[in-house]
Amino acid sequence: MQVDNKDYRTIWYNADTKNVEVIDQRVLPFKFEIVEVKSATEMSKIILEMYVRGAGLIGAAAAWGIYLAAKENSDISFIEKSAKELSETRPTAVNLQAAIDVMIPELRIVAKEDRLELAKNLAQQISDNDANSCKRIGELGYNYIENKIAKGEKRRINILTHCNAGWLAFVDYGSALAPIYEAYNNGMDIHVYVDETRPRNQGARLTAWELGKHGIPHTLIADNVGGHLMQHGMVDMVIVGADRVANNGDVANKIGTYLKALAAYDNNVPFVVAFPTTTFDADIKNGVKDIPIEMRDGNEVLYMNGVSEKEEESFRIAPEFTQAVNYGFDVTPSRLISAYFTEKGIFESVEGLL
Amino acid sequence: MQVDNKDYRTIWYNADTKNVEVIDQRVLPFKFEIVEVKSATEMSKIILEMYVRGAGLIGAAAAWGIYLAAKENSDISFIEKSAKELSETRPTAVNLQAAIDVMIPELRIVAKEDRLELAKNLAQQISDNDANSCKRIGELGYNYIENKIAKGEKRRINILTHCNAGWLAFVDYGSALAPIYEAYNNGMDIHVYVDETRPRNQGARLTAWELGKHGIPHTLIADNVGGHLMQHGMVDMVIVGADRVANNGDVANKIGTYLKALAAYDNNVPFVVAFPTTTFDADIKNGVKDIPIEMRDGNEVLYMNGVSEKEEESFRIAPEFTQAVNYGFDVTPSRLISAYFTEKGIFESVEGLL
Repeated sequence: MQVDNKDYRTIWYNADTKNVEVIDQRVLPFKFEIVEVKSATEMSKIILEMYVRGAGLIGAAAAWGIYLAAKENSDISFIEKSAKELSETRPTAVNLQAAIDVMIPELRIVAKEDRLELAKNLAQQISDNDANSCKRIGELGYNYIENKIAKGEKRRINILTHCNAGWLAFVDYGSALAPIYEAYNNGMDIHVYVDETRPRNQGARLTAWELGKHGIPHTLIADNVGGHLMQHGMVDMVIVGADRVANNGDVANKIGTYLKALAAYDNNVPFVVAFPTTTFDADIKNGVKDIPIEMRDGNEVLYMNGVSEKEEESFRIAPEFTQAVNYGFDVTPSRLISAYFTEKGIFESVEGLL
Repeated sequence: MQVDNKDYRTIWYNADTKNVEVIDQRVLPFKFEIVEVKSATEMSKIILEMYVRGAGLIGAAAAWGIYLAAKENSDISFIEKSAKELSETRPTAVNLQAAIDVMIPELRIVAKEDRLELAKNLAQQISDNDANSCKRIGELGYNYIENKIAKGEKRRINILTHCNAGWLAFVDYGSALAPIYEAYNNGMDIHVYVDETRPRNQGARLTAWELGKHGIPHTLIADNVGGHLMQHGMVDMVIVGADRVANNGDVANKIGTYLKALAAYDNNVPFVVAFPTTTFDADIKNGVKDIPIEMRDGNEVLYMNGVSEKEEESFRIAPEFTQAVNYGFDVTPSRLISAYFTEKGIFESVEGLL
């Protein structure tokens, strides 16, 4: 997608340096910085320290990490050791392990001198597959918006989204935001309400940034506001991404998603979840009961980051004696979900994915 | 309620100086400062600049403002002019106008030399009535918690609250927090989940502060978290305050209240609204349709206040090009409300108030 009229992905191979480059997402939206990654060890650090985040992007980063390992030393033992280090950076990231599980067996069975080229091709393929799946979600989703939401009317379409499931979370296009980019690129009058998404503010920091840089009209709102907007007919559709989709259709996504699904249901607003089918986990029978929810550091609630003058700082927003708990995700029951947008199609129930 | 083992109200008459004193709520929780108010003009500024806020407290502040006017000049024309200035500080504050409407007619019909004493007595009465109503809500609410929630079990009771409807919003005790103080003072093992309440963070700044200073266990959460907690049986009851209660039982309260009511309803968690009956507005037939919602400055969403090192600062948390909208309140439909806690009793429907 575009940043100041130039096309970017979140991660790419630089043919001149033969290294990998990524956008440093930690400093967005206050700085736009590209970081060169030269080794698998550096890539592990980049993933661990969240220069890159988001299901699809983490998978691609791991794949490029294995390429960088092969570049340093194409002994399979070295590559496997690097893969293990990479896999331990974000143990719950499904795409990270999936990328490793695709690459290692293939690298193992080729001659040592062919490994570097194969690793590069596989990493590029994993990146392209991610981008293509997202592009497809965008096309299918735009079609849905056109036919089921706009229904041929030329009015402005208002979409609410929570957290960041945009191109910054993948290699390109995104999941929840892909239909929005597609609609915008096709000339639809579209506007996005962006939940700020406390406590880490991915909406305020990342979604607002990527939409704005691509030129898409958007308005930032506190996470408390969506219910009121839906009560008053100001939202045509809610689109969110997914961290995991269970066999029964329940969706684990950023904490607070469930509250928006309740409000959408209560006001007959379509609530859709967009995800590449790699996110579907048929082994989880009941999402609300069985998906473990990450608890993160309470300091993310007690402190906030922002810019004052020029430099970004962290500051405390609550009394010194107050403790916080910080659940990272919640699970939205399938009964509240209108549609599932995937690269394989749009489904009213996840039975289509079984 | 207590601050470091000393009893405070939010506003009081100082018999030595014959002036009025208030806690400066703008600088809580990072500073605890008491401000002396010496004239009606100063009181108007104190209300306008939100040193004091909250329905009950604004009413008492206006009453003491009229006392200060009478102290400066007990001509009825001067007092009426001051009352007009006071009433224009927060035009939608029902209790402010109510205090003026009680005091001015009584002051008008007494001799000039009796006005100061009468104004002091009436202001003290309005303050005491507010505190007594809240105390009664606390007693009735504690009884409800004991009988309907704890049901004689000695386990910890977890209550979730949104925004600040504590003693800081009234003269003392509060509305939503009054039953919690009463329960705690009676030895109940009680713990409060405090929604931070974006964008102004009244939960993080005020509710966390007043609960902590009184010694009540509490945990700060992002506004996104309540749904997940209720899904997992971690909340026994939700208690919120009200800015206005309509004839049909719909409740206007801080933006985001509605989302918590949906989650409570979806998980069979009692959702109760506590308020002095002065907040009930029988003229509003349908809350969701008819209660106008204040839109505040978008900068409250784009910037956050907190402390870094020692001094409080404001920080921007979103890209420079991003706009925000900032609805101050939302309306919770009566069908989502389990009980109304008032000083006149606890009602399952507002019909009891008609």
